[in-house]
Amino acid sequence: MHELIFIGLGLNDENGISLQGLEETKTAESVFIELYTSILPDFSKKHIEAITNKNIEELKRADIEEKNAEKLIQAAKKGKTILLVPGDPLIATTHTAIRLEATKHKIPTRIIHAASIISASIGLSGLHNYKFGKTVTIPFPDNPSQTPYTTITQNKTLGLHTLCLLDIMTEQKEYLTINTALTILLNDEKKQKKNTTTPESLAIGIARAGSKNPIVEADAIKNLIKHDFGNPPHTIIFPGKLHFIEAESLTTFANAPKNLTEQNT
Amino acid sequence: MHELIFIGLGLNDENGISLQGLEETKTAESVFIELYTSILPDFSKKHIEAITNKNIEELKRADIEEKNAEKLIQAAKKGKTILLVPGDPLIATTHTAIRLEATKHKIPTRIIHAASIISASIGLSGLHNYKFGKTVTIPFPDNPSQTPYTTITQNKTLGLHTLCLLDIMTEQKEYLTINTALTILLNDEKKQKKNTTTPESLAIGIARAGSKNPIVEADAIKNLIKHDFGNPPHTIIFPGKLHFIEAESLTTFANAPKNLTEQNT
Repeated sequence: MHELIFIGLGLNDENGISLQGLEETKTAESVFIELYTSILPDFSKKHIEAITNKNIEELKRADIEEKNAEKLIQAAKKGKTILLVPGDPLIATTHTAIRLEATKHKIPTRIIHAASIISASIGLSGLHNYKFGKTVTIPFPDNPSQTPYTTITQNKTLGLHTLCLLDIMTEQKEYLTINTALTILLNDEKKQKKNTTTPESLAIGIARAGSKNPIVEADAIKNLIKHDFGNPPHTIIFPGKLHFIEAESLTTFANAPKNLTEQNT
Repeated sequence: MHELIFIGLGLNDENGISLQGLEETKTAESVFIELYTSILPDFSKKHIEAITNKNIEELKRADIEEKNAEKLIQAAKKGKTILLVPGDPLIATTHTAIRLEATKHKIPTRIIHAASIISASIGLSGLHNYKFGKTVTIPFPDNPSQTPYTTITQNKTLGLHTLCLLDIMTEQKEYLTINTALTILLNDEKKQKKNTTTPESLAIGIARAGSKNPIVEADAIKNLIKHDFGNPPHTIIFPGKLHFIEAESLTTFANAPKNLTEQNT
């Protein structure tokens, strides 16, 4: 049967794929992968090819965005075709564009979900999911935007936490770090002065969510900015008002100084 | 080594576990499962016991919440212990409470992530992740709350979408349906009159995310309320302002009437 199935690889490496995703891949006629919308630090193409017994073709950004995913669409017209993607599929807008294109060609689509940085970061932080406001991506310094600062301010005003994804250019192997992102936001604070991201503000840095040794560190920005988070991917959470259980989670799991969490409770 | 590992089962059934989660479970000394924080409609305990080669003990709400997860803690003091949970671990606040308890007993904890209803619903809807505001849970009618209506109103004012989880009492096998939740919100609208959830307002009903045949249906509330969504779990998204690609996704993947998506663009 001709169809296109988006299968999530989850976080960190190919072992984040679900059993269902693995079974569907084994029985596919064509298998593709894209690795540019997110980073899987410990990914091994050889291993996923071995366990699925398939040759897997990597599609680059140009293959998908400039050529309308033509290879994928042509394969899916002929038989069961898989696109393996980092994280949970369809969170990246690129995947929605491919799904719309497939539907134009009358190709049925399915989604097999996996772990996403969104729920993983929230879980690792110990903060309550229903207290997060809008998520925002912080761009590289050469592409400045007021949106992150404005979003964090708006969320804080409502007492809500902000999950900040950090921009990546996987093909150039460039990844925005927690440290650089905090520097950007300290500068925004100097200009906008809304008491959002001052040197004393509490922030949580999360590195390599989904790996065996994720780092989750909470502190005042002035201290966090000096912390060595190691390799990407990095994310940051700016807490709004903390429930006392959230405060306890941050001191217990993220080394947050107690006086700082108390100030935010 | 003594430790407690929270492993996500993802959505729908035990095949949502990741390869990493499966491997860790196979090598554990004790394996527990809780199935009350969320519904896995097609879950088979026999199957997960067969593929992990373990006896798995189910913990009920009372075992965890009234007895401080004592069985789990005692097992984790002795050796590698797993708690299998629906969805992505630590999104349910119950899991954070267990993790805090384990840390008090000096038991190291780890998390192995899996698909969550949060990212899955967003992906299935075709809406953009960074345009969602605060998430809210709609309680059963006998436990009324103004929070859902207020949250949807607040998000809409900011142009943001709202993901609504629907309350469940798994041990009583009671699940709030999309239809009942919409009835509640129509009544709230009659009282509060903020033009948030009128009969003409656009909403998206999602049933059985992560199963082989999820339903994703977008329409005016007055029509959606008559739609048969079948078995739980159900979720609802109330869109804020739609980007044109989001509008196209809703008409393409969720049968949204074009005039309705245009009104919200």
